[in-house]
Amino acid sequence: MEFMTGVKKKEDISVKTLLETPEGTEVKLEGAVHIIRDMGEVAFVILRKSEGLVQCVYEEGSVDFPLKDLKEESAVAVTGTVKKEDRAPGGVEVRLQTITVLSEPTEPMPLAVNKWKMNTSLEAMLNMRPIALRNVRERAKFRIQEGVVRAFRDFLHSQGFTEIHTPKIGAKGAEGGANIFKLEYFHRPAVLAQSPQFYKQMLVGVFDRVFEVGPVFRAEKHNTKRHLNEYTSLDFEMGYIEDYTDIMAMETGFLQYMVELLKKDYAKELEILKVMLPKTEEIPTVPFTKAKELVAEKYNRKIRNPFDLEPEEELLIGQYFKEEYDADFVFVTEYPSKKRPFYAMDDPEDKRYTKSFDLLFHGLEITTGGQRIHDYKMLSEKIAARGMTEEGMEQYLSAFKHGMPPHGGLGIGLERLTMKLIGEDNVRETTLFPRDLTRLEP
Amino acid sequence: MEFMTGVKKKEDISVKTLLETPEGTEVKLEGAVHIIRDMGEVAFVILRKSEGLVQCVYEEGSVDFPLKDLKEESAVAVTGTVKKEDRAPGGVEVRLQTITVLSEPTEPMPLAVNKWKMNTSLEAMLNMRPIALRNVRERAKFRIQEGVVRAFRDFLHSQGFTEIHTPKIGAKGAEGGANIFKLEYFHRPAVLAQSPQFYKQMLVGVFDRVFEVGPVFRAEKHNTKRHLNEYTSLDFEMGYIEDYTDIMAMETGFLQYMVELLKKDYAKELEILKVMLPKTEEIPTVPFTKAKELVAEKYNRKIRNPFDLEPEEELLIGQYFKEEYDADFVFVTEYPSKKRPFYAMDDPEDKRYTKSFDLLFHGLEITTGGQRIHDYKMLSEKIAARGMTEEGMEQYLSAFKHGMPPHGGLGIGLERLTMKLIGEDNVRETTLFPRDLTRLEP
Repeated sequence: MEFMTGVKKKEDISVKTLLETPEGTEVKLEGAVHIIRDMGEVAFVILRKSEGLVQCVYEEGSVDFPLKDLKEESAVAVTGTVKKEDRAPGGVEVRLQTITVLSEPTEPMPLAVNKWKMNTSLEAMLNMRPIALRNVRERAKFRIQEGVVRAFRDFLHSQGFTEIHTPKIGAKGAEGGANIFKLEYFHRPAVLAQSPQFYKQMLVGVFDRVFEVGPVFRAEKHNTKRHLNEYTSLDFEMGYIEDYTDIMAMETGFLQYMVELLKKDYAKELEILKVMLPKTEEIPTVPFTKAKELVAEKYNRKIRNPFDLEPEEELLIGQYFKEEYDADFVFVTEYPSKKRPFYAMDDPEDKRYTKSFDLLFHGLEITTGGQRIHDYKMLSEKIAARGMTEEGMEQYLSAFKHGMPPHGGLGIGLERLTMKLIGEDNVRETTLFPRDLTRLEP
Repeated sequence: MEFMTGVKKKEDISVKTLLETPEGTEVKLEGAVHIIRDMGEVAFVILRKSEGLVQCVYEEGSVDFPLKDLKEESAVAVTGTVKKEDRAPGGVEVRLQTITVLSEPTEPMPLAVNKWKMNTSLEAMLNMRPIALRNVRERAKFRIQEGVVRAFRDFLHSQGFTEIHTPKIGAKGAEGGANIFKLEYFHRPAVLAQSPQFYKQMLVGVFDRVFEVGPVFRAEKHNTKRHLNEYTSLDFEMGYIEDYTDIMAMETGFLQYMVELLKKDYAKELEILKVMLPKTEEIPTVPFTKAKELVAEKYNRKIRNPFDLEPEEELLIGQYFKEEYDADFVFVTEYPSKKRPFYAMDDPEDKRYTKSFDLLFHGLEITTGGQRIHDYKMLSEKIAARGMTEEGMEQYLSAFKHGMPPHGGLGIGLERLTMKLIGEDNVRETTLFPRDLTRLEP
């Protein structure tokens, strides 16, 4: 009988190990042929590995494989000797001895993914997504995105949160409104989750603090630079809070942790994209009404609707706090009740407003959060006052009938946060395979 | 201007801190009133916190709050002094001084969640899920599930994998077949992802090694103890493999890491559920045909269909390897081609079989994996030979036209793995909110 006993050791060495390998050592490397630069007597064969590029040197006569038969984007295994070379990435190059082709492309590349910046439209990059992402700058965006998610989870884990996985098919949407995708579930009407809101609240009654990283679905009919119809939501919900400032404080802690993790583990990607990390030491908070006034005054705007915030106003709030406090983030608090779902905790002193907040990052909303109603009677009354029905919410409401601690939480749009972090202006730039009004493939 | 500067320090102390607190110290605790045991002159008020139970002692006359007004499942904040007490959980109790009720239930509990084992049916527990999960044993299952997911991610991260988030709404299913949920996407037909298969393969061309933890959707019409219509899939895909044993070796490494992490960080939950962790040091591998023969011989069974494996045969394979090798897991390899999707790599020496495997855990399939076809021509020919169309797969196929390394991967059903780990026999026991033929709520 044969047995598996654990991970096999690879002969192929990582870029990190290569850079620490003494000159003259023979090494084996695997990767894609990113680019071939034929200089006549020598050629540079740049290998693309997961962690970065490696410069290999092909000298006529010293390699067992004819250069003319080597194709860009082939997957290869090579052997060679390590040599210090200041002009190579990382200061090391590999003098080739053997090349083994593992797999070859059958068509020429439709995009110059081996250029530093691809000279092509976002539309073209999205149409040829699996190819476009091979570009070093493109893929660096998603390494940073990975870092954001790792930071979210690791930080919340350290704060006593439990990770949950809640269903995405359900009988009723949590956020209400028209932007719900509908489907048929074994001859019954069903919907795709707009958020894990009801589930994470119910589970506060079980685990006190919970988080989830997962897809959410919004059938929004507007095609803008900041909307997706499916995105990854970083959600948490915490019990035994004093008020909604506990939620903002927790998010601030996450952002601080995220910046440190990115600096530590994603320095190469930050360098590739020339990212200036945002300031997270202190994040100003300003009430909704006050924010509107500040912006109206400084930028000479008229307040058209005191209960709504236009996208341009959000941008100006971002600008205001950058100019006045050098702040990258700002919490806008006390949103009007009619702009918030039924479960938002109203301000007891002025029920037109809620104990809730948005977090703006350079003028774009990346988080909505706040304190929720935990008292069954209050919740039931608010549902009635809004003319809503409790039908389909019996289970959600049962959690409140049987006792729930004061609690609150938030949802962060992963793609938006990544977009703002790396200074892009279209959320599709930081989505591996975006879904929008016109895009269902790839 | 007010600023957020990071996580607020809580006065409430954790169970862990409580157990290390010197006798006589005054502490503050928050939690749910799990159970009240009135013994006459004293009463025990057991608080349920995220990490466990805390015994508080109510002595008539020393507390500012009448015991008769305290309700089970209320959320409370209490103060008291620490006292050593061998009979209390963790050897420590809190002598109560003050009780502040943060929130009260409005109805009596429909389930005795404060019993060690709830004397009720799975059906009832699923119908009252947000309440039933408050039971200490119920929630322990999902802490262990959290540990499995943490182990998967942390281990793969250490092995150079990049985490990805791929869309769940698409134009075409990856696995084919009839079990696809359909929906309308802005007047176009769309489907819910049966797996992230196409995406993770395309991204092997970008990151070499990728993983994803996310929901998958299967419109299976059979209602069994091991099927869900939505479940959480732990997926990885890795490039530059020699063959499919690299995938099995990586999974073995994960299982070994998982067992160690559970021992280290989830010892309390393992103890609550009396879990015996499985053996992962060496996992036997047996070809499909051989496995059928071994079982037929030992248990005196007739092989009815040499190209299919019945659930009872799977069970017997599990039994065989437990009896013969004391093995909890067994890799069954070389599955028949017609039981595998088109992208599976056929055995070059016998195209009726594939370079693929299932992992059985005590006789239940918890993983399907294998090597994939990486050569465009081979892939295209296999699609044609199966009478399939390339329509809707243009982007997937483009990744192969433009060069892909040899690769393979797998998908693990999180709920099934958790179920087998803790010795349950219905996958709904280890799903927070299961979705099956009849269950769309809660």
